[in-house]
Amino acid sequence: MPARIAEAVWQGTLQEGSGTLKLGSGVYEGPYTYLSRFEEGAGTNPEELLGAAEAGCFTMALGARLSRAGFIVNRIATTATVYLEKNESGFSVTRIDLVTEGDVSGVDEASFRQHAEEAENTCIISRALNVPLTLSAKLIN
Amino acid sequence: MPARIAEAVWQGTLQEGSGTLKLGSGVYEGPYTYLSRFEEGAGTNPEELLGAAEAGCFTMALGARLSRAGFIVNRIATTATVYLEKNESGFSVTRIDLVTEGDVSGVDEASFRQHAEEAENTCIISRALNVPLTLSAKLIN
Repeated sequence: MPARIAEAVWQGTLQEGSGTLKLGSGVYEGPYTYLSRFEEGAGTNPEELLGAAEAGCFTMALGARLSRAGFIVNRIATTATVYLEKNESGFSVTRIDLVTEGDVSGVDEASFRQHAEEAENTCIISRALNVPLTLSAKLIN
Repeated sequence: MPARIAEAVWQGTLQEGSGTLKLGSGVYEGPYTYLSRFEEGAGTNPEELLGAAEAGCFTMALGARLSRAGFIVNRIATTATVYLEKNESGFSVTRIDLVTEGDVSGVDEASFRQHAEEAENTCIISRALNVPLTLSAKLIN
């Protein structure tokens, strides 16, 4: 099982400095700053990367579960929203909301939702997180 | 405080299907597959995105701490290695190793390491994770 790599560089102070993030696969390298993280500047930020990890893992896991159960996964689309809020520990990721829609042949709504809940609870990245997750799952066939 | 968004799409079975991941900032959208995650195919995977979130957060936090303490952060570079291994829960992220090198004016090695340990323990993404972290911190002035 390959280990996965990512790299970060930071130069300068928090508010006036800047950084770069790079994915080990080589598919992306780009800037991040105080503004891109805590306000609305251009560039990426750790929270959207965390959201992409969770959305990607959950959606793949849900597709795998439904396929194994004999359903045809035409398309599952998930949006993860990562909340960064100030609480007693300073800024914290307080919640990740998953909203998923499935175009899946053969499954009924209740079974789709049950598979989605199980993917939410058991997928690799969900188990690697210490953050409350919420899920809204809808069949859109 | 803005909420951050990421999106995932999956089509098909686990091993023959494919997906796309998109960051809400718009800086990256690209494919992921079973091969790019569990073997050595082209594309990204949730684990390197998780590593980029942690490396980016830790490195920014360390730069912020050192700057606030009055040191000049010329450059801090961190590599995160994310281990995906099979254990009693199935595949799991079993550990993230952080290796950081700092070119920082005015600080001594012991103080640099202490700030690095505190950034590792307290940064926003570290607190959002349920995964053992290790740290190797070196001053390279």
